[in-house]
Amino acid sequence: MTSLSDLPIRDDLRGLTPYGAPTDPVRIQLNVNENTHPIPETVATDIVMALAGAVMNANRYPDREFTELRESLAAYLGHGLTADHIWAANGSNEVLQQTLQAFGGPGRRVLGFPPTYSMHSIIASGTGTEWVTAPRDPAYDITPESVVAAIAEHTPDVAFLCSPNNPTGTPVSNDTIAAAYDATDGIVLVDEAYAEFSDRESALALLDGRPRLIVSRTMSKAFAFAGARVGYLAADPAIADALRLVRLPYHLSALTQAAAVAALAHAPEMLAMVDEIKTQRDRMSAGLSALGFTPVPSEANFVLFGGVDDPQALFHKLLIQDILIRDVGIPHHLRVTAGTAEETTAFLDAMADLQALGRVE
Amino acid sequence: MTSLSDLPIRDDLRGLTPYGAPTDPVRIQLNVNENTHPIPETVATDIVMALAGAVMNANRYPDREFTELRESLAAYLGHGLTADHIWAANGSNEVLQQTLQAFGGPGRRVLGFPPTYSMHSIIASGTGTEWVTAPRDPAYDITPESVVAAIAEHTPDVAFLCSPNNPTGTPVSNDTIAAAYDATDGIVLVDEAYAEFSDRESALALLDGRPRLIVSRTMSKAFAFAGARVGYLAADPAIADALRLVRLPYHLSALTQAAAVAALAHAPEMLAMVDEIKTQRDRMSAGLSALGFTPVPSEANFVLFGGVDDPQALFHKLLIQDILIRDVGIPHHLRVTAGTAEETTAFLDAMADLQALGRVE
Repeated sequence: MTSLSDLPIRDDLRGLTPYGAPTDPVRIQLNVNENTHPIPETVATDIVMALAGAVMNANRYPDREFTELRESLAAYLGHGLTADHIWAANGSNEVLQQTLQAFGGPGRRVLGFPPTYSMHSIIASGTGTEWVTAPRDPAYDITPESVVAAIAEHTPDVAFLCSPNNPTGTPVSNDTIAAAYDATDGIVLVDEAYAEFSDRESALALLDGRPRLIVSRTMSKAFAFAGARVGYLAADPAIADALRLVRLPYHLSALTQAAAVAALAHAPEMLAMVDEIKTQRDRMSAGLSALGFTPVPSEANFVLFGGVDDPQALFHKLLIQDILIRDVGIPHHLRVTAGTAEETTAFLDAMADLQALGRVE
Repeated sequence: MTSLSDLPIRDDLRGLTPYGAPTDPVRIQLNVNENTHPIPETVATDIVMALAGAVMNANRYPDREFTELRESLAAYLGHGLTADHIWAANGSNEVLQQTLQAFGGPGRRVLGFPPTYSMHSIIASGTGTEWVTAPRDPAYDITPESVVAAIAEHTPDVAFLCSPNNPTGTPVSNDTIAAAYDATDGIVLVDEAYAEFSDRESALALLDGRPRLIVSRTMSKAFAFAGARVGYLAADPAIADALRLVRLPYHLSALTQAAAVAALAHAPEMLAMVDEIKTQRDRMSAGLSALGFTPVPSEANFVLFGGVDDPQALFHKLLIQDILIRDVGIPHHLRVTAGTAEETTAFLDAMADLQALGRVE
């Protein structure tokens, strides 16, 4: 049998293992920051109707410019944005990959602030961009001063700021973002995958007059649309022109375009779940605090909590009870996604029981 | 206003313009080798039902391993293949891109034989892989001797053989493919996007015992599914393991997976159009010959024809009559997709009229 090491793969890939959040089929899945609320049935019906129309023309290539989708996304974001400011791809991962294909790549550097979204460094590596890092302060914050110092030290071609940050839930202030922009001639990309769960002003408010600033978003989280794979960004129209040079033609299927446009037409219903999720997130933080853990203040749909003696052991004890959360590799910490009220209760009850039994070591 | 040249894009992208087949909305579109027959309505109904199921779970990430889709594709291809031999992505362009990310990239070379599919060199460039070329013989054929000589000259890490070749319609024999394989330690990828329109044995028959051989396919052409963006490959299971290292996680949406599985369950109905398209292709070749042009013998769903004094002028005279074909940049040649019987008749009638009026200059 041929194994991977027998094949002439690139040297920098030898010995690597694929990205993979564990995907055990369990009752309560709070591991990958999905929106655990299904799409409302009336919205689903409209989406299926739109898909039916797309299927009837599926023998033809899709609109390469996905114009209607860009218009819908611009209308959703507001801030005076138009379709020209929008770009989209199959998940925000692909948006980030295309950004690094255009502005990063061999001989260039992208700066990140770990702990942060694990795909950032993987996408850097996949595009041949050097991944350089700078620290956060002990509360996982990034100040204007520290971002300017990091940029001065590393002179990156691209800087990734994740706000709210995954896996910590920490926001990056618009002051920090503006300071980063002024400190570099490169691209500043703010990954706002979880922005809808924060009450803070979005970096979208900074776009005007800053042509090197990119704000990326996703429909996977607040829109409960992870399965449809729709990521997007807002930026100066010249940024979209740059991405047109590196995207594969027809990269967004007619099905993706139709489904996303239909979902965006129901933005208020889709987003009605957001307040409920924030309530559950805050319940989780409060409950974990009451049990003696140290949750990091979160503006996203998940909570990173410290004070865990043995994260792997606790992870497995919850898994036995059909509850899947995430070990993100930070010592003494675990991350849990805010679920429905029932899922949140089940998680907190299981944690309380383990605590009472002395089983949280 | 900011322009592209004001942005810090990579130097190798400066001055480029995006890939773009013209997409004028005309009555008869025979320009991008689509299947001009819509999906049969009974099949479309089943696809929509499958999509409805996927929408109900769209809040969750899709199956990262798209297992059911790989099983369906393996069953469709036959040749003793199983799901382990299959990989898929958003169009065969993405399959090729992932292949070059794993086996090409900076410091590596991919060999092609122009004129060939224009995306091959674009994807090489996008992945930082050097694109090197070798000539075809005057009939656009590649012999075992010429492929071995080209590999000896260029020592590529990857060789792309497009069979039947776009834009010429020329097949590559399995003898040539086997000779290429034996002549290199690198990857040999046979792009069989148009294989269903050929009566020749597929390179799939060569896979057993050749772990560095990849056969890529698409559902865009024979399956009339260009809008759904489903490309795939068959190869040794170790090849799929390599691609797992470079693919973005969850790259295939739940919608794509559901729609493709449903379409593959109706493979016989979907492929019923193939014989009709071959009939129209042969009508086009015969008709063009009768008018004094020189069609290249085609085993695909299109015909490249020579003997055109001024391709741009003829292209525009057809466009005025609402018929869109393709100028692929080969002097004195144009390419036309085989349409429905009516579309083929309309094209041949228009050509005959222009000829009679002395307007094919």
